[in-house]
Amino acid sequence: MATPSILLYAASSHNADQLYFGQVSVPDAFIAFTSGRKKCAVVNGLEFGRVKRDSAFDQVFPLEDLLQEAKKRYQDRKITAAEVIATLARQHDIKQFVVPEDFPAGLATRLTRLGVEIEVADGPIFPQREIKSEAEAAAIREGNRCSAAGIGAAEKVLRASTIKAGKLYHDGAVLTSERLKMAIEIACIEAGAVSIDTIAAGGDQACDPHHRGTGPLRANELIIVDVFPRVTATGFYGDMTRTFLKGQASDAQRALVATVRQGQLAALKTIKAGINGKKVHEEVMTIFTRAGYETKRTDQGSVGFFHGTGHGLGLEIHEPPRINSTDYRLKRGSVVTVEPGLYYPGLGGCRIEDVVQVTDTKPKLLSKFHYEWELK
Amino acid sequence: MATPSILLYAASSHNADQLYFGQVSVPDAFIAFTSGRKKCAVVNGLEFGRVKRDSAFDQVFPLEDLLQEAKKRYQDRKITAAEVIATLARQHDIKQFVVPEDFPAGLATRLTRLGVEIEVADGPIFPQREIKSEAEAAAIREGNRCSAAGIGAAEKVLRASTIKAGKLYHDGAVLTSERLKMAIEIACIEAGAVSIDTIAAGGDQACDPHHRGTGPLRANELIIVDVFPRVTATGFYGDMTRTFLKGQASDAQRALVATVRQGQLAALKTIKAGINGKKVHEEVMTIFTRAGYETKRTDQGSVGFFHGTGHGLGLEIHEPPRINSTDYRLKRGSVVTVEPGLYYPGLGGCRIEDVVQVTDTKPKLLSKFHYEWELK
Repeated sequence: MATPSILLYAASSHNADQLYFGQVSVPDAFIAFTSGRKKCAVVNGLEFGRVKRDSAFDQVFPLEDLLQEAKKRYQDRKITAAEVIATLARQHDIKQFVVPEDFPAGLATRLTRLGVEIEVADGPIFPQREIKSEAEAAAIREGNRCSAAGIGAAEKVLRASTIKAGKLYHDGAVLTSERLKMAIEIACIEAGAVSIDTIAAGGDQACDPHHRGTGPLRANELIIVDVFPRVTATGFYGDMTRTFLKGQASDAQRALVATVRQGQLAALKTIKAGINGKKVHEEVMTIFTRAGYETKRTDQGSVGFFHGTGHGLGLEIHEPPRINSTDYRLKRGSVVTVEPGLYYPGLGGCRIEDVVQVTDTKPKLLSKFHYEWELK
Repeated sequence: MATPSILLYAASSHNADQLYFGQVSVPDAFIAFTSGRKKCAVVNGLEFGRVKRDSAFDQVFPLEDLLQEAKKRYQDRKITAAEVIATLARQHDIKQFVVPEDFPAGLATRLTRLGVEIEVADGPIFPQREIKSEAEAAAIREGNRCSAAGIGAAEKVLRASTIKAGKLYHDGAVLTSERLKMAIEIACIEAGAVSIDTIAAGGDQACDPHHRGTGPLRANELIIVDVFPRVTATGFYGDMTRTFLKGQASDAQRALVATVRQGQLAALKTIKAGINGKKVHEEVMTIFTRAGYETKRTDQGSVGFFHGTGHGLGLEIHEPPRINSTDYRLKRGSVVTVEPGLYYPGLGGCRIEDVVQVTDTKPKLLSKFHYEWELK
């Protein structure tokens, strides 16, 4: 049997499979497919030269030619991507395409009506994305260099800030989450990456792990700084978190931070090829519970450790594998975050996140930033 | 007949329909649907509090509860989004969902197998997105304020740069496209938006309209600066382009720039509610052709005016309507870019882009930046 032909239709600037496949960022949806062993793309005149020159496609076809061809073939219809794909399927003698889970349902329906068989892949269309090559691991390391640049910028601002009546001041004005995020994001741009949805949240805000942070930052409160920038040159992400406190930490805050770091170190010790992610996650949970940090849902939301220990990182910020309460064996070469956290409104939230590549023994650290957190 | 229930499954940080529907940015795919007149969402514990507080959803359900319910119902299966949706469809007595074109095909297939009927919407699922409210037009104007901040930053760097042996120097180093883009992107961050894929391309690079620009910028060459940032607070885009030249322009360059601006002004004069976008586009093309600027495909790529005159702008950088060679009547309230360009390797490329809202009479300008381009 012949290798099934893969079909993608997405903007590679937004779709990781498309970017992985053609290795070129295109801001609008375009057709990409395999014909035999060849990787092919169909792009319009605006993109043609650049894609032909900069991509991993073996063949690049001008959309305009295919539109002409499709118009001849489907004289009574409006020509959409479906008619173009049906036309090229015929040209390449392809009867059936395998498409990824997130292939557009509308296009799949129209293709089926045009007699092109569509089969949705069971699981990732490029499962090999989970295993990172040396170059890919290096690209993620670079992403974390950018993360570290952002976190470093935040630390610098916090160190330089002063405390007045419990609030932080910097450059003569109240230091807000917004201003801290701006400093982080500028540092990321300067490092070669774009950080979106940056988190710089203090106090109770930080107890909602996806709260980005807003308004004045306060002294003596835990401030979570989570930076996951995308490297412009490669599309790979970094993802790191540190928790800072400006002023004077309480014993309870110190115990919280120490426990989170202890959980992280235990996870890092456990992670290796073949282990079940669930076991890693449970290890962390056990450490937290034994230290007296209970995880539960309350009427006001969850407290304790109520997210996964980690997730795959690559061309997507969240991708396989997951390290949480589901069964999933970690594979050699995959890259994961390790980011336990504890969150208790009133006391505050703490998360510490690094990134490692899974090996047969000790995981290889792909992120680097110190763990000093009490800033005077 | 009851109103059909809409179903979405996407990350609102990446999917404009999902963001439009719930008015809240969530970085992972989540379930959103209508039940009667109510807008509902299903999110996990990480997002629950924030979505409940900050979104336009009438009801927010915790994913964890639905997972429990789905596990009871489908004891023999792995529980995925499909099983969760099938469970809530039963709870809400929904037999059929209408989904957008870009709904994931894999999920659609699984839902169908579970007995949930899926109908793909014919055309946009929220056609009203094309018509911008006053608040939405204001958000786009804000996007263009950020674009203008970026273009202004580029102009400032170019003005401050010096010329040595044909190359531009700034702050003691060769001024590259990369450095100019960095200045633009930092200005955007400071203005409250994120600019990705910023274009700052000079000379022949600018003749490839989607070339971002790389390497040293040169004196006496046309430099296209195209900035389309996304406002962090709203998700709306700005999109503006100016073409600069540092040094001394030739007569041919001046004629080129003047013709592009003439084409833009003609388009701005033609645009109003009810007009066919094709007519606007042809108007520009005619002006260019009459002025002697031929559009054609060559072996090295296209030259002349080989992209559309404009496109809709909103929560997506490219959305309906289009102003190009296809028939499409412009509607009152829609927001479009007006961005003719001319590209001839050897001479250079020029594009000038502004944004307007369509009215019954003169379009309302939503972008503002001067048109001075020869920088000494």
